[in-house]
Amino acid sequence: MPYINLRVAGELNREQKQQIVAEFTQTMVRVANKPAEYVIVTIDEAPLAGWGWGGQLLDEAD
Amino acid sequence: MPYINLRVAGELNREQKQQIVAEFTQTMVRVANKPAEYVIVTIDEAPLAGWGWGGQLLDEAD
Amino acid sequence: MPYINLRVAGELNREQKQQIVAEFTQTMVRVANKPAEYVIVTIDEAPLAGWGWGGQLLDEAD
Amino acid sequence: MPYINLRVAGELNREQKQQIVAEFTQTMVRVANKPAEYVIVTIDEAPLAGWGWGGQLLDEAD
Amino acid sequence: MPYINLRVAGELNREQKQQIVAEFTQTMVRVANKPAEYVIVTIDEAPLAGWGWGGQLLDEAD
Amino acid sequence: MPYINLRVAGELNREQKQQIVAEFTQTMVRVANKPAEYVIVTIDEAPLAGWGWGGQLLDEAD
Repeated sequence: MPYINLRVAGELNREQKQQIVAEFTQTMVRVANKPAEYVIVTIDEAPLAGWGWGGQLLDEAD
Repeated sequence: MPYINLRVAGELNREQKQQIVAEFTQTMVRVANKPAEYVIVTIDEAPLAGWGWGGQLLDEAD
Repeated sequence: MPYINLRVAGELNREQKQQIVAEFTQTMVRVANKPAEYVIVTIDEAPLAGWGWGGQLLDEAD
Repeated sequence: MPYINLRVAGELNREQKQQIVAEFTQTMVRVANKPAEYVIVTIDEAPLAGWGWGGQLLDEAD
Repeated sequence: MPYINLRVAGELNREQKQQIVAEFTQTMVRVANKPAEYVIVTIDEAPLAGWGWGGQLLDEAD
Repeated sequence: MPYINLRVAGELNREQKQQIVAEFTQTMVRVANKPAEYVIVTIDEAPLAGWGWGGQLLDEAD
């Protein structure tokens, strides 16, 4: 029943999402003995203009 | 002051959202004695391609 | 596959949690046609001293 | 390493987001002695039709 | 109706929490024209052993 | 800047947490080209009595 939320700045393509879901799930199976069919992963792709870091929006950092 | 976040794969229509908000709020009032005007519900409709389950994206499951 | 997170200020007893999980799940089944066995509910009981509302911590509001 | 998630109903313009990120970060530096470069802020602008309050969607409240 | 969740590694004392809640709320009022009585802040104090950064738990970083 | 939140029912020991943080971070580096020093992982260990699944609390499922 592990629930994993991944939030990234910018976008991921489909192959990246598939690979991330597969690998996170395998980690939970191998390391924490969770059945794969209970592992849920959600991915949020957030715009750079919606992230701040060090007091600035990501898209104004240089 | 209960705060409820619902995340669903795919979309809900307006009537479904109204009904869910109304029912979740009634549950909190009736079961937990919270005033209705303090209950907040947020709904996130996430694309199927952003959910993984059992190691696969939802839209590739068969 | 709906995922519901409920955050409340203070504690709920076991009967309240059972009832909330049962009712939220029934709502998702009835209103959104989701299978009950896919509905996940997590409950976070947060201390009053960890909530602010109107600019004050909940436990100093009068 | 503080992580701050702000969820608002409706939209913020770019200047508002910049100001919010700058001020939240300054608060964490000044009040909690966190280095600015460790403070992360994410902003979610949610549609009014995805928020319920008092048992109603925000866009039907009067 | 802004909802702000702050997650910090380690603990904050009561004065820090009060100050953070007050300042975040003032920022939302001043910058985003939100009424103070609608601003909600929740604070999660997470143990260092529950945070990873750069591939390590925070309490093993040197 | 990926931010990953893992919520599990029950507890993980220290070695499991270290391994999960290391592997999730490696996945983000390898698959999504993110620098390891930007990857943040937070782990929430939630009590079984705070999870519902299929309309029941996890600790009453049989």
